Amino acid sequence: MKTIIDGLYKAFENRVRLGIMAALAVNETLEFTALKEYLDVTDGNLASHMKALEKEKFVGVKKSFIDRKPNTRYYMTTQGKKAFEEHLNTLESIIKAQK
Amino acid sequence: MKTIIDGLYKAFENRVRLGIMAALAVNETLEFTALKEYLDVTDGNLASHMKALEKEKFVGVKKSFIDRKPNTRYYMTTQGKKAFEEHLNTLESIIKAQK
Repeated sequence: MKTIIDGLYKAFENRVRLGIMAALAVNETLEFTALKEYLDVTDGNLASHMKALEKEKFVGVKKSFIDRKPNTRYYMTTQGKKAFEEHLNTLESIIKAQK
Repeated sequence: MKTIIDGLYKAFENRVRLGIMAALAVNETLEFTALKEYLDVTDGNLASHMKALEKEKFVGVKKSFIDRKPNTRYYMTTQGKKAFEEHLNTLESIIKAQK
């Protein structure tokens, strides 16, 4: 049976993960520290959620060196974009049904 | 620091709980079985989420007898309504920022 919550992804339920995806949806790539400051979370908290999103292949990571310093940037995968869109569209329907 | 995810409630993160609140927001009271069918979840799953929402005082329960049969109905508390509205408004802002 199709229900109103069917288009919601377990992977995006957590508020930090929702924030990560929202930030990556409007920024091509973001550094770990930028995301951390944007969402006001600890290193450990952000790292564990990034790992979960990476595991689902919704987020990718680019490691490089800038001025010989390691630089880690995250981006949203095509798969992640599609899933996040479906998630937001479902949330939007739920919100609309309230008004 | 205020972030984009600050108005989101941990209590409503789970999709089943979001579904429960959405259903109770537009129905004055609902029976357990009606909610169960609406969200297509098991007894145990729904019961555990209802308990969590009751504990937060976002949902109340009315027990009575109809034709000598026990009848359990759930409703959203004023506190629950206020919190859910804030949650949805925050989700709405996140969605709007994407478009």
